[in-house]
Amino acid sequence: MSKRIITFGEILLRLSPPNHSKLYKSRTFEAHYGGAEANVGASLALFGCDVKFVTSVPDNELGDSALSELRSYGVEPIAVKQGKRLGVYYFEQGASERPGKVLYDRDASSFANLKKGMIDWEVIFKDADWFHWSGITASLTEDLAILSKEALEAASKLGLTISADLNYRPTLWNYGKKASEIMPDLVQYCDVLLGGSDDSEKCLNIKIEESESMDSVFRKWKKQFPKLKTIVSTMRYDANASSNTIGAILWNDEKLLKSKEYKISHIVDRIGAGDAFMAGLIYGLITWPESYQKTLEYAVAASCLKHSIPGDINLSSVNDVTALMNGASGGRVIR
Amino acid sequence: MSKRIITFGEILLRLSPPNHSKLYKSRTFEAHYGGAEANVGASLALFGCDVKFVTSVPDNELGDSALSELRSYGVEPIAVKQGKRLGVYYFEQGASERPGKVLYDRDASSFANLKKGMIDWEVIFKDADWFHWSGITASLTEDLAILSKEALEAASKLGLTISADLNYRPTLWNYGKKASEIMPDLVQYCDVLLGGSDDSEKCLNIKIEESESMDSVFRKWKKQFPKLKTIVSTMRYDANASSNTIGAILWNDEKLLKSKEYKISHIVDRIGAGDAFMAGLIYGLITWPESYQKTLEYAVAASCLKHSIPGDINLSSVNDVTALMNGASGGRVIR
Amino acid sequence: MSKRIITFGEILLRLSPPNHSKLYKSRTFEAHYGGAEANVGASLALFGCDVKFVTSVPDNELGDSALSELRSYGVEPIAVKQGKRLGVYYFEQGASERPGKVLYDRDASSFANLKKGMIDWEVIFKDADWFHWSGITASLTEDLAILSKEALEAASKLGLTISADLNYRPTLWNYGKKASEIMPDLVQYCDVLLGGSDDSEKCLNIKIEESESMDSVFRKWKKQFPKLKTIVSTMRYDANASSNTIGAILWNDEKLLKSKEYKISHIVDRIGAGDAFMAGLIYGLITWPESYQKTLEYAVAASCLKHSIPGDINLSSVNDVTALMNGASGGRVIR
Amino acid sequence: MSKRIITFGEILLRLSPPNHSKLYKSRTFEAHYGGAEANVGASLALFGCDVKFVTSVPDNELGDSALSELRSYGVEPIAVKQGKRLGVYYFEQGASERPGKVLYDRDASSFANLKKGMIDWEVIFKDADWFHWSGITASLTEDLAILSKEALEAASKLGLTISADLNYRPTLWNYGKKASEIMPDLVQYCDVLLGGSDDSEKCLNIKIEESESMDSVFRKWKKQFPKLKTIVSTMRYDANASSNTIGAILWNDEKLLKSKEYKISHIVDRIGAGDAFMAGLIYGLITWPESYQKTLEYAVAASCLKHSIPGDINLSSVNDVTALMNGASGGRVIR
Amino acid sequence: MSKRIITFGEILLRLSPPNHSKLYKSRTFEAHYGGAEANVGASLALFGCDVKFVTSVPDNELGDSALSELRSYGVEPIAVKQGKRLGVYYFEQGASERPGKVLYDRDASSFANLKKGMIDWEVIFKDADWFHWSGITASLTEDLAILSKEALEAASKLGLTISADLNYRPTLWNYGKKASEIMPDLVQYCDVLLGGSDDSEKCLNIKIEESESMDSVFRKWKKQFPKLKTIVSTMRYDANASSNTIGAILWNDEKLLKSKEYKISHIVDRIGAGDAFMAGLIYGLITWPESYQKTLEYAVAASCLKHSIPGDINLSSVNDVTALMNGASGGRVIR
Amino acid sequence: MSKRIITFGEILLRLSPPNHSKLYKSRTFEAHYGGAEANVGASLALFGCDVKFVTSVPDNELGDSALSELRSYGVEPIAVKQGKRLGVYYFEQGASERPGKVLYDRDASSFANLKKGMIDWEVIFKDADWFHWSGITASLTEDLAILSKEALEAASKLGLTISADLNYRPTLWNYGKKASEIMPDLVQYCDVLLGGSDDSEKCLNIKIEESESMDSVFRKWKKQFPKLKTIVSTMRYDANASSNTIGAILWNDEKLLKSKEYKISHIVDRIGAGDAFMAGLIYGLITWPESYQKTLEYAVAASCLKHSIPGDINLSSVNDVTALMNGASGGRVIR
Repeated sequence: MSKRIITFGEILLRLSPPNHSKLYKSRTFEAHYGGAEANVGASLALFGCDVKFVTSVPDNELGDSALSELRSYGVEPIAVKQGKRLGVYYFEQGASERPGKVLYDRDASSFANLKKGMIDWEVIFKDADWFHWSGITASLTEDLAILSKEALEAASKLGLTISADLNYRPTLWNYGKKASEIMPDLVQYCDVLLGGSDDSEKCLNIKIEESESMDSVFRKWKKQFPKLKTIVSTMRYDANASSNTIGAILWNDEKLLKSKEYKISHIVDRIGAGDAFMAGLIYGLITWPESYQKTLEYAVAASCLKHSIPGDINLSSVNDVTALMNGASGGRVIR
Repeated sequence: MSKRIITFGEILLRLSPPNHSKLYKSRTFEAHYGGAEANVGASLALFGCDVKFVTSVPDNELGDSALSELRSYGVEPIAVKQGKRLGVYYFEQGASERPGKVLYDRDASSFANLKKGMIDWEVIFKDADWFHWSGITASLTEDLAILSKEALEAASKLGLTISADLNYRPTLWNYGKKASEIMPDLVQYCDVLLGGSDDSEKCLNIKIEESESMDSVFRKWKKQFPKLKTIVSTMRYDANASSNTIGAILWNDEKLLKSKEYKISHIVDRIGAGDAFMAGLIYGLITWPESYQKTLEYAVAASCLKHSIPGDINLSSVNDVTALMNGASGGRVIR
Repeated sequence: MSKRIITFGEILLRLSPPNHSKLYKSRTFEAHYGGAEANVGASLALFGCDVKFVTSVPDNELGDSALSELRSYGVEPIAVKQGKRLGVYYFEQGASERPGKVLYDRDASSFANLKKGMIDWEVIFKDADWFHWSGITASLTEDLAILSKEALEAASKLGLTISADLNYRPTLWNYGKKASEIMPDLVQYCDVLLGGSDDSEKCLNIKIEESESMDSVFRKWKKQFPKLKTIVSTMRYDANASSNTIGAILWNDEKLLKSKEYKISHIVDRIGAGDAFMAGLIYGLITWPESYQKTLEYAVAASCLKHSIPGDINLSSVNDVTALMNGASGGRVIR
Repeated sequence: MSKRIITFGEILLRLSPPNHSKLYKSRTFEAHYGGAEANVGASLALFGCDVKFVTSVPDNELGDSALSELRSYGVEPIAVKQGKRLGVYYFEQGASERPGKVLYDRDASSFANLKKGMIDWEVIFKDADWFHWSGITASLTEDLAILSKEALEAASKLGLTISADLNYRPTLWNYGKKASEIMPDLVQYCDVLLGGSDDSEKCLNIKIEESESMDSVFRKWKKQFPKLKTIVSTMRYDANASSNTIGAILWNDEKLLKSKEYKISHIVDRIGAGDAFMAGLIYGLITWPESYQKTLEYAVAASCLKHSIPGDINLSSVNDVTALMNGASGGRVIR
Repeated sequence: MSKRIITFGEILLRLSPPNHSKLYKSRTFEAHYGGAEANVGASLALFGCDVKFVTSVPDNELGDSALSELRSYGVEPIAVKQGKRLGVYYFEQGASERPGKVLYDRDASSFANLKKGMIDWEVIFKDADWFHWSGITASLTEDLAILSKEALEAASKLGLTISADLNYRPTLWNYGKKASEIMPDLVQYCDVLLGGSDDSEKCLNIKIEESESMDSVFRKWKKQFPKLKTIVSTMRYDANASSNTIGAILWNDEKLLKSKEYKISHIVDRIGAGDAFMAGLIYGLITWPESYQKTLEYAVAASCLKHSIPGDINLSSVNDVTALMNGASGGRVIR
Repeated sequence: MSKRIITFGEILLRLSPPNHSKLYKSRTFEAHYGGAEANVGASLALFGCDVKFVTSVPDNELGDSALSELRSYGVEPIAVKQGKRLGVYYFEQGASERPGKVLYDRDASSFANLKKGMIDWEVIFKDADWFHWSGITASLTEDLAILSKEALEAASKLGLTISADLNYRPTLWNYGKKASEIMPDLVQYCDVLLGGSDDSEKCLNIKIEESESMDSVFRKWKKQFPKLKTIVSTMRYDANASSNTIGAILWNDEKLLKSKEYKISHIVDRIGAGDAFMAGLIYGLITWPESYQKTLEYAVAASCLKHSIPGDINLSSVNDVTALMNGASGGRVIR
């Protein structure tokens, strides 16, 4: 795999009470490092891609630890060391009828302190093929929205393929601008987009009907953002905190493809399932550029496996994903 | 919430092997503190009620630890410090076809040593509104049955609302009296009762037919105990140790109401699910005295959530319970 | 239970990442000791049988620890102390669509170093009633296949009942001989055999049709190995790594009996489920020699319970198994 | 003990890698709640005092958890629920030559967001006898320095005894004012002060000579702050991260008393040792107002025991401290 | 080693908070099984002796678990299965100035329920060579004192060598008789006795002077109990909860031998150090009957090693003990 | 730091029982990855050097995990993926008089399977400045000794500085050659050597007198191996398993320098202390080529800190080491 991929975003320390304990009660936390774009990058690196991750961390043990974790997956971190704190989020695993809870504690982090001009995009994008970003970065501060635009312009100028995950988190958008005021200006640079119909108006400022078909929704998006070539959306049905059914659709500028669906009966950790999908998608688009259905199936199978793995990052190999995609059952012990 | 609630019972140290290990094999135990009436009190305190818990513990580190745990939930313990040991129970979590096991080790505990006259009920019940007890206390020693009666008389005299959970545990009734010889004399003081048809003859000495409707059963109970105004029963279907369906019924002296049912697909810990129901019921009866259906739904939703929480105590807040009652799904991560 | 049972095989240190972690990521391992024949022996000892386990371990702390574990179940180990290492296997627990993985690391172990003449079978089999072995031993080295034959001849000469589990693991057969070249010569000594239709050609060199009935398959086996009196096969349906349905069949030289099936909704640990079945079968054949159906139901119930127990060994008692066999549900907490 | 004590400060979530792991490497954290003034309050409550703790926490699970922890010790929290985050600090336990490390992550916490006028001091101090605060609060923000002054004026007006711990932490004073510009204005209200000669110039703006006797230093302090009646200082000798010798001195407006010294050969956790001393001092001053030597010995013994207890808080009882103070050795197991 | 040894006593479940946590605060317990006489037996079995342990446990999972633990060391348990509970003790590990604490919870245990006539001593002692008991058994109930006498008479009649550890625990002697009223009648049967000068009056009813030499003390004991041939006493100096110096003396009916002393700088777990000494002593007396000094050195080295091993039982081998006895240093890693 | 360093050796999975448990008893293992040369490389990378590590691992999850661990420190692994198993060693932490134990289980590992010609040394050494190897590799198989020679010749040809640690482990040399037959032929290529007087005859075939001065010993070595420019030796005094005193000497072809000594009172983990020294030495020789004393002090301080850090690898930064070297005490918490 010779394509070089750049991802950009915040890496956070995740703290989770073990064994379904509640945040209120737990006196132990399991630590993972993750974040939407870091998760995509790590999974791609584990698939064998050449990945760099652009971020900012404080110059202390926790910042070093986050970078060390990235390196362990084979990701090369490019980190501006500044600011005072590593962003944190607390994740309380749900069970059955009790939903999982995420408590963000990322205000005033080193990453949130990044500003336009602090990163030399031209150097970073030199010789790179792909740039991946997500809406989370733009939601954190206005400076980060501006910085995202700076990155997108540079990537566009150098001809990189650009992918984004809208990743709309209403509680994060609180610096005074709405997502719909910011995101369209950034999405226009994208070739590949992951988003759902719920995001259409709130994120992209594109109104859709309640019962509008996804084909129609994606065509509206394409009209608004003509550079888009691939649009995907993931779906989750019949879900409680411990089990659900997942699937996805992909619109390849021509038609809408539907993936196989997986009934996931026992969820170990669903954080990062969307990022696992995104990594699978990018891997597929690069590896099988002609075969959208295969790419879609790979992405969904990757996302399915992520639900069985603790932490934010899909630790599955290409072999693991391919086996599931090809019909292997989880019911046989591999010896 | 200004109602003041008194609960009375034993608080035990619960020791559980972690991660589905068996008692036979485990060399680590997770410690929780709990007990039927303490669990009701703690849940009510977490719902915002003013709760006192009357008990007895030894004057040692474990007794102090049990009281500390109660305080942590906002419960004010009123403990007679005497006797030599804190009662213990071992709980082996089951899985699928393997049933959970409780091994009681509460003989000769400080609580089991309590006797009539050791508690100043008049002081405790002064300015209180509600008294909750359960059949477990009466099952432990004859002295505790007598003491329960002393409490009930005092509470009645002072006009408190009285609730009880029959909590019939055959293996605990072994001091020479049958439940049916003791319990009716205590239940006569109750306004609110939680029990099932199985308990009718064994606990209340009221014979019922195999296929008798619950409406009819509860009318018989009412006839025998005319003070009863609310009678509830919980149900569990299709159960194995890891999943089941729960629901409940409530008879409000007029008609029989049925709750929504919840299929709980992944049980984390079912101990205390009945106590969570009882706390929800008391909370509802106090908060929405006019709306029995709402109260019943609240109680069942509370019990449902308890199945997802390790330990004896339902750590859910009013918001958590209300969200589930109003249809929120466990399948969406709260961010 | 006065029957004396001898089992023979390797005992391994099993290392498993906790809580569904992956081998790649885990920095903690849970240690269990187990192995197909040791598991059968330990379960039989826990059922109250008199069991000896013949093996070889190195003369170091880990060898001693393995023997200590066997003793803890009441098994008397007869171990040749030689060689340099205890065999190890790593087990990564799967979840839902992610399959479990076993990584064997048993090459050059003390057991793999055993040779004909190192064990005094005559002494061991003296006064014994039953000998159990499995195809795993024969798969490891040619010396072990020869040693297995030596044991079988001695056991036959002394009139022991002989049982075997084919336990066909393709990745283990790599010393240059195929299973079908070795196993028939050993199976000829057996009275009782556990195997599946998949094993017929690869293990026993007996061709069968794709859709051949098990009754027909077993009759072919009987024809080839006329000493066989009881043949059993276990089945697993609709399986993912977390749930499945199990059942079994038994052919008693007359007709094919089918067991009840169990839907196991939450698998804790499926390693050793076949060994638990085998132990149940041996126990049943000894205890209820006339009642094959009862024996079969006991064996399946034992195997079902094993799925709920961490580690390789079925820690269930005769009471536990009998209760399930008689219809007890896992849904009721035993107090 | 009928004296009512008010303490005021921040309560933080402390996260520590277990078993001497480093922050850089650990993927598990042990959680404790603590903070200089909370630690003093909790220890006093465990000594049997009536303690309230004034603070601010966010209205989320972690804020609730911090308050729950305080309640578990018998402290009544008075918390302004506002702001977005609970302050955090990471503590890496040292060993031998490797020093412990504290990484503060308390910027922008709910407590740091407190301002003058948000707390009704008159209500809080009504019927109270003692007010304890520390220099940490004043170091965090200028608003907190102003709020501290507001509290001190109210406490003075109502005649409470006032104690303070200078607790000089250079890295915390970074809002643009030096400690010496802020602290003297606050210290003037104090009756009891804990501080060291190092703090004299930096904190109190009082120059001292390199080799000036503590008697002389304290007389200078008294001259500057005439309300001071008791001044104490703790000492630590021959220290590495695992062992040291501690002692203390007390100047009671007349003469300088010296405590017994303790060689602590195995430190379990030294965080909070100063707070344990302070709690012991307040307890002694209230309990034995005539006996400064006894008070000093009690305070040092309390601090000594804290070194053996994980977490921030001295969990020792009056009996534990008194036994050590009276010469009991740690070398005898109490049965 | 062909000598057959019988030990008799209670085996308890020990529950300890991990990592120096306090009982008050810990919500996890490490479980060990132990008891003075069981510890002696297990250590002797690990030294290669043939050991049986006579006891009583309840017929439940914890009773089975205790017996399983004994078997794991190679001890053959002979257990009367009766009564309702396994005795428990809580052990809070101390550190430096904080002493360890033992909280006994063994009242009403199965063992405490044993009575004369429940054990067939003649069968047990048949072909045995040595009987070891301790004063703890006699301290628990009067029935157990009587039962101890029954055992001693039987053992004497059959000519076994008899050893005892006085193990004087004042808090256990509370059934109305003083140790000095009971113990002399039992000690008269002993050939070997472990005790200290503190026990002389309280346990043996033999007055000694404050400054009386141990030689003189032991001569007085010998005079009173003429059967005594070997008397030993262990010593502990300069102790805090984490470090101390140990040594021992042995009087062999002729002269007083002194052992080497060990400075134990880091105590891991000192529970059972006396039992480890006793096991070493018995092993030595059997193995080197002529060499009292060697026996004494072996016993002290065994006790020294026990301080480094978690749990009640000295897991050291003969090689481990001999190496230390012969001057090996703990400072060299064995590879 | 622009010097490029190549290290070569085996990386092993280390399995350690936690909290001073013994291998015999522990049912949990902590996993670390390490090995003499990997430890040197990881420490150098953490000091900021550019490090590659040449090794061989199996193509499975454990091999990948070992490489991932190396990457996490910033080391670039160059691994031949072949063979069937990752080498393992078990490490039982000692305490006080109980020595630590290492149980090697590295026979037949992927690394042990390496042969001459499998590694392209010319490519690896291109542009590199330094090559570090150790005697452990040569001890494992004759092929590895030959391969080591191949590497040394290539490194010499390309003009790299070459360092070695004799690392004499008698139990590893068992393929039929003595260290003294193999090592001199390899040591002749070295510029820098770490070894002790004990190794002189056994490893280098150079006889020395019992009381010969180190200066004289090192001169003899120099005479034999004229390329040597720096010879170092580490020392350990007054050691038990929990505490000792360390120091080192350096002979710089002119005179013998002695380092400061450190009394390490509480050892957390001493494995890798020599490798930490070696990494410090290489770092110093590169950074301060003129200042041997500074280099020596840095190396000893690095080794001292390693004793406080769990696992094989010295996680200390240059700042940490420099602070200790400059006299900072472990007794002050860094805030």
